[in-house]
Amino acid sequence: MTQDEPSLTLPPNYTFRKLKLTDYSNNYLETLRVLTTVGNIEEHSFANLFRIWEENSNIYQPHVITNPEGVVVATGMLLVEAKLIHECGKVGHIEDISVAIDEQGKKLGNYMVKSLSTLAKSYGCYKVILDCSPHNVGFYEKCGFKNDGVEMVQRF
Amino acid sequence: MTQDEPSLTLPPNYTFRKLKLTDYSNNYLETLRVLTTVGNIEEHSFANLFRIWEENSNIYQPHVITNPEGVVVATGMLLVEAKLIHECGKVGHIEDISVAIDEQGKKLGNYMVKSLSTLAKSYGCYKVILDCSPHNVGFYEKCGFKNDGVEMVQRF
Repeated sequence: MTQDEPSLTLPPNYTFRKLKLTDYSNNYLETLRVLTTVGNIEEHSFANLFRIWEENSNIYQPHVITNPEGVVVATGMLLVEAKLIHECGKVGHIEDISVAIDEQGKKLGNYMVKSLSTLAKSYGCYKVILDCSPHNVGFYEKCGFKNDGVEMVQRF
Repeated sequence: MTQDEPSLTLPPNYTFRKLKLTDYSNNYLETLRVLTTVGNIEEHSFANLFRIWEENSNIYQPHVITNPEGVVVATGMLLVEAKLIHECGKVGHIEDISVAIDEQGKKLGNYMVKSLSTLAKSYGCYKVILDCSPHNVGFYEKCGFKNDGVEMVQRF
């Protein structure tokens, strides 16, 4: 348990919740653009992906944090992988953590990561993992994570 | 493309294929024990997990390599994640690569990783990623991967 964990709460009237279909027009894509390239995603494409995530909700757990106006200001995905190793154990993968630029400094990213970790534990995961760039290691250490290896990539 | 890729083939009468239900009693678990703890997994537990993987075959792609006797001697999982970012892009996660100890030195691990990468590309993934320990970086570089970040973990 990290030292700031006991007191970690959201600012007043901010909410952590599952992604909704209506978040397409509620700053979800714009918040993800802080993290990386999103591209031009039309509403039907979002709806199709949302349906895939919903139909596989034992695997995909997309979440958001909304501000007092109900607008999405942080994103995060928990992917729950069913493995054979470790007695048919499950591993949680945390993906696509992003916080709107004008909402940074409120520990929303920290809250998102810890909430997804708690969710992974409730799903019976024996561990939760994520990949990050070296300059984000300190942030994830504050979230209760430690360095465990190297991420390798092949791009197509 | 790495320099050994054009000539990479399996030894004679070795086969790369999808995992089968009957691999429970065909050295699949024993091969995974080379990698990590597997535990005591009864046949019905394996069958249940196999069913989950089959029912979600757009996400889970477990594969094996068998030797001339048809026995499993290498394992590997491709997990295909449907994302929103990168124009509703897909990311392949390579997991649980293991090679039976008495079959090592035949480049079976290399063949497995490259085959799963090719499979990820055929699924439309824009990249394939994996996590490894620092001493395996050289092996994955030979498979066409490069270091892209840090793996962080929280264990429960």
